[in-house]
Amino acid sequence: MGKRLIVVGGCAAGMSAASKARRMDPEMEIVAYERTGFVSYGECGLPYYIAGIVKHHQDLIVRTPEQFAEQGIAVHTYHEVTEIDPENRHVRVRDLQTGKERKEHYDKLLIATGGRPILPPGLSAEKLAGVFGLRSVEDGIAIREFIQERKPRRAVIVGAGYIGLEMAESFHSLGLETTVVEWMEQVLPRSDPEMAALLQEALENNGVRLILGAKVETLAGDPQGHVRQVIYDGGSVDADLVLLALGVRPNVELAREAGVTIGETGAIATSSRMETNLPDVFAAGDCAEAYHRISGHPAYIPLGTTANKQGRIAGTNIAGGTAEFGGIVGTAITQAFGLQVGMTGLTEREAKKQGYAVRTVKIKARSRAHYYPGSKPLHIKLVFEQGSGRLLGGQIVGGEGVNGRIDALATALQQGMTISELGQLDLAYVPPLAPVWDPLLIAANVALKG
Amino acid sequence: MGKRLIVVGGCAAGMSAASKARRMDPEMEIVAYERTGFVSYGECGLPYYIAGIVKHHQDLIVRTPEQFAEQGIAVHTYHEVTEIDPENRHVRVRDLQTGKERKEHYDKLLIATGGRPILPPGLSAEKLAGVFGLRSVEDGIAIREFIQERKPRRAVIVGAGYIGLEMAESFHSLGLETTVVEWMEQVLPRSDPEMAALLQEALENNGVRLILGAKVETLAGDPQGHVRQVIYDGGSVDADLVLLALGVRPNVELAREAGVTIGETGAIATSSRMETNLPDVFAAGDCAEAYHRISGHPAYIPLGTTANKQGRIAGTNIAGGTAEFGGIVGTAITQAFGLQVGMTGLTEREAKKQGYAVRTVKIKARSRAHYYPGSKPLHIKLVFEQGSGRLLGGQIVGGEGVNGRIDALATALQQGMTISELGQLDLAYVPPLAPVWDPLLIAANVALKG
Repeated sequence: MGKRLIVVGGCAAGMSAASKARRMDPEMEIVAYERTGFVSYGECGLPYYIAGIVKHHQDLIVRTPEQFAEQGIAVHTYHEVTEIDPENRHVRVRDLQTGKERKEHYDKLLIATGGRPILPPGLSAEKLAGVFGLRSVEDGIAIREFIQERKPRRAVIVGAGYIGLEMAESFHSLGLETTVVEWMEQVLPRSDPEMAALLQEALENNGVRLILGAKVETLAGDPQGHVRQVIYDGGSVDADLVLLALGVRPNVELAREAGVTIGETGAIATSSRMETNLPDVFAAGDCAEAYHRISGHPAYIPLGTTANKQGRIAGTNIAGGTAEFGGIVGTAITQAFGLQVGMTGLTEREAKKQGYAVRTVKIKARSRAHYYPGSKPLHIKLVFEQGSGRLLGGQIVGGEGVNGRIDALATALQQGMTISELGQLDLAYVPPLAPVWDPLLIAANVALKG
Repeated sequence: MGKRLIVVGGCAAGMSAASKARRMDPEMEIVAYERTGFVSYGECGLPYYIAGIVKHHQDLIVRTPEQFAEQGIAVHTYHEVTEIDPENRHVRVRDLQTGKERKEHYDKLLIATGGRPILPPGLSAEKLAGVFGLRSVEDGIAIREFIQERKPRRAVIVGAGYIGLEMAESFHSLGLETTVVEWMEQVLPRSDPEMAALLQEALENNGVRLILGAKVETLAGDPQGHVRQVIYDGGSVDADLVLLALGVRPNVELAREAGVTIGETGAIATSSRMETNLPDVFAAGDCAEAYHRISGHPAYIPLGTTANKQGRIAGTNIAGGTAEFGGIVGTAITQAFGLQVGMTGLTEREAKKQGYAVRTVKIKARSRAHYYPGSKPLHIKLVFEQGSGRLLGGQIVGGEGVNGRIDALATALQQGMTISELGQLDLAYVPPLAPVWDPLLIAANVALKG
């Protein structure tokens, strides 16, 4: 009989680890507990499900519990792990449908508890109808049903991060009057402001109202308990539907109580093998930190890509293999209102904060050969180190061709390339897809001149 | 008074060098001679001009001779340099409109004579109407006019390289019955055959007839001197229009006669500063070799991207600056019949030929998240070295998202990355543009398993 792996949380990281461990060790007993009714789904697809671009919520599911069972992975949905006892190597599990608790032994434990939505600090605990977060399939179903059944007219999104803006497009596409309220003076808080401004313009041109630099204080409801207003420090905005999208924080209470070391970012600290400080206890995904190759420090940038990689690496090591996570470079992208907005590495703000002697270059170029119709403007900002010319980060905003160029920059960053090396890249050129001087090369050349 | 630079050839490399030298040295006298009537145009745009996607041939022009004159660069079109005398530092120039020759002194010389079309070996010298090459703007105009005026019904393209296939799409889009005759057993001769087969399928599904493994012997005309048939070793095919697109060979006769060293590739050998063996004589573009970073040898892969880079570097050094060309990695891409076909680095065939212990992996993935509509299949082949795992090359065929992934691979190749490092890349993910496990990561992971 093989060893027993318990996976706490059925998110991407957890199920990726379970699958990998199963493939590597057919003898291992693998059990996963998930609080919600769904495991292994494309969380990032929820805005498109709500918009109706993805027809059924089942389409988002990568693997069902039944499919995992066929692989020999026992998935228990509606089960919450309430305690980890590392000394006796067991967890306490509550069946959320019966309320019953039981202890379960583990040989290896993976904490994949993910993140939980950040709520506005002053928000009353009282739950108003029409107020939603967006993390789980259940959240997505609830929002879609609410829109279909209650036909809200005005949607207000609190938070202008990736999910907030993707949901702004989703609501807008469904014909809702859409307002985004953000406490920072810009959308996409991680981006440099002049890059975010390009997206702001597109949002406003599409009739989405932006209220920036506004701190949400509370939500007001009607006597029937339906949300009616979002009240912020400078005023209020009417709402029939409110989406709280202030981002997530790592879900680490369970781990902390068990004695797992939490890093400075507030997420679980792990080794490159995804081990926590406790023996045979691993962590991966949105509850864990990731080493940032450019800053050289752990970072908390919860993304599905990182969660999947970390899960796979945890699974390998849990099953007796050897794998190390080399870290992230901070790549992220979104697409909304006809613009693709991508970043990788450090922004100017981040690089300065970390003490680099920062230089930047910003160019506007075209996505295709100058004579080829349908070309879209591409705005590129490169952040690099004075003197060494080492690339520190890049941000690109444009109508097409952003993700591939971000991928090239992410590759350059992973390898510690300089601006000068970047300017020598042998990039793909065909008139409908790129100009003969690729915008990345133009940016590097301008940087070299400066 | 500044020194005098003579540029032989008004192609991308020549004019890129002239512009760069002008920007660096306002005193230098710069004179360029070009045999045709056009300089500084997007040669790769000619198929789109013939298809009518680009409306006017003027749209292809980057800068006219008049615009160069404003920059202080004297461009003489319809002027051919017939002799270089390195000892006395002059060139002999013939005015093709008057037939008059004159000697011109140079302090610095740039040979940018480009490439010339390869012709089928047995082709009769007799010129039939309706037979074209495609290198110059004049060629493009002639083909477009021929189609508009003579309304040919059947086009036959000899050669299934990039230009051949782009012209197949162009002719097909204009309603011509289109046949491509290629002496190799596949299209895109540089590609590995199983990748080329994907494009072959798309061509045939679109009604383009392919005759592979067929050596063209001659062209037959009617008594009026119009082309009527392409005759190959195994048969013949009727034609009202024939495009010869067998690729180009470097145009080096002038250089060779002057004592310039020609490399093993048949193109002009240069230093990384684009110097030839003769003092103050530089070469750049389709007449010159390029160092191939992966093979470690000079290569002849004539492309606009390389020509522009080499020209710029030659211009910098000519004007007293310092710049070195780090070389190419062999990146190339085309798009035809809804498929993007890209390659970078060495193909399996090339890598084996160079003596590498070659391993390969081939995967099929999707261009978007599994649940996001409109996803296209993406086929990726990676070529890497046994043991070290060093990436040697990649080929991608798919309906979208090929060029950016080729760019990421080209960046990886320039940096000598391994498959394992590739599998760690922090690539951009958003459901409409990429799956959470990017196809590149899937390919790397499969390679690592194997």
